[in-house]
Amino acid sequence: MRLAYLGPPGTFSEEAALLYDPTADTLPVPSIPAVATAVLTGMADQGIVPIENSLEGSVNETLDLLIQEPNLRIWREVVLAISHCLLVKPGTRHSDIQVIYSHPQALGQCRRYLEALFPRVRREPALSTVMAVEQALQSPVPAAAIAPLRASALYPVEVLARGIQDNPNNFTRFVVLAHHDHPPTGDDKTSLAFTYDIDRPGLLYEALGFFATRGINLAKIESRPTKQELGRYIFLLDLQGHREEEKVSEALADLSRQAAWVRVFGSYPRWKGAK
Amino acid sequence: MRLAYLGPPGTFSEEAALLYDPTADTLPVPSIPAVATAVLTGMADQGIVPIENSLEGSVNETLDLLIQEPNLRIWREVVLAISHCLLVKPGTRHSDIQVIYSHPQALGQCRRYLEALFPRVRREPALSTVMAVEQALQSPVPAAAIAPLRASALYPVEVLARGIQDNPNNFTRFVVLAHHDHPPTGDDKTSLAFTYDIDRPGLLYEALGFFATRGINLAKIESRPTKQELGRYIFLLDLQGHREEEKVSEALADLSRQAAWVRVFGSYPRWKGAK
Repeated sequence: MRLAYLGPPGTFSEEAALLYDPTADTLPVPSIPAVATAVLTGMADQGIVPIENSLEGSVNETLDLLIQEPNLRIWREVVLAISHCLLVKPGTRHSDIQVIYSHPQALGQCRRYLEALFPRVRREPALSTVMAVEQALQSPVPAAAIAPLRASALYPVEVLARGIQDNPNNFTRFVVLAHHDHPPTGDDKTSLAFTYDIDRPGLLYEALGFFATRGINLAKIESRPTKQELGRYIFLLDLQGHREEEKVSEALADLSRQAAWVRVFGSYPRWKGAK
Repeated sequence: MRLAYLGPPGTFSEEAALLYDPTADTLPVPSIPAVATAVLTGMADQGIVPIENSLEGSVNETLDLLIQEPNLRIWREVVLAISHCLLVKPGTRHSDIQVIYSHPQALGQCRRYLEALFPRVRREPALSTVMAVEQALQSPVPAAAIAPLRASALYPVEVLARGIQDNPNNFTRFVVLAHHDHPPTGDDKTSLAFTYDIDRPGLLYEALGFFATRGINLAKIESRPTKQELGRYIFLLDLQGHREEEKVSEALADLSRQAAWVRVFGSYPRWKGAK
């Protein structure tokens, strides 16, 4: 099975790809839209993309991709615990480090750790965690990078510390994209989007009513700009249940009659850890 | 009036600050949380922060700041048309340019322009549009930067092109933060957040009902992670009307009884352009 992911190797996306399927033939591509293209052109059988982080929120590029691409479905979800590591050139000691490179988001997620252990060390923003590792290795002064553990398997570095993020509840949810969604398993989720071409009080309230009155629980609600006008939105829902279950199917039929546009991204099993 | 904004000078945030109040004594600070701190400590009277872009969606850092900071209110909103410019060292011609620097988001928003006019020119990601201008000025080969027009007033550059973004509907909405919100004007908006400590079908549906049944229009709905658990959210609403209007005030009272936590960020006049 060929599995496209957001490269380069050494990222959390690669960690998620290996968590989903350790035997997959992984294919790094340069962007989230390129993951979609790899699946649509048949270059890959499936593609994995981040959709949501427990601290940062939604990955807008993935939501927009699902909205814009009618030929992709969500086949699975995968939840990865995000663990930031401190990587150095072998032999570098804590007390040697004069500069720490990472992506601004990773520096932000490790802020308290850095303030406690490296209060006087310069922090240098990098365009990605993998570029941070390369910059640390090329640095003329002793340097470290904050990066995923996976990077330590690919670069000649030593792991000085693991799990250095401030908040232990740091998880990223990924979705596996394919040409079709997953058959029912009895413990499923369904993701969809819808929008309106008019604006009147209560439209969204009515829409949520199709689900609430049938006892269908919403796992998530989100909005994305339509990109046509500030203040016009596409709504995104994750709900508990499979689109082939009777009550979900009825609610979706009601929604299709009420909204101007509805797209079901897919039904797929709820993540319960790697097998 | 001292007005803090997300610096450095030359950013869209500075453009928005000057659009809001051309006579303000503007104070650039290094981050969105620093804008809040400037207001809370009295270093500035007000602070302006981006909250939403018509193409990219919400600015999560601003939403999280409003959620976490009980002593700030929204006093005004400001909507700025985003216009990207191509800036060069004076005398540089279109045909000379060998590399174009900008923030990845700005490069993305001008992708079609770049492909049409500079198909063979290297694009180089920068950490900010202002750093892109500095990199272009220091480049050993002829270079350009994509940056706000405001940067051309602050750096020794020439404006080769204006409004080069692909989508003409590119607007950023800013909010002005202060110690209190705005008195009613008759055409107002109210922004608020709420969350639940339990999870059962229909909770959000009930909440939206408090507004829908009173004919109150929702301008926006958004969710942010609680940062405690993947799948637990804080909901954010923008609605039409002032919190002191009777029907809005009644709906907010109903919501306060139903939700575990509610915070009104403020009521403020709808933006109708600079005066």
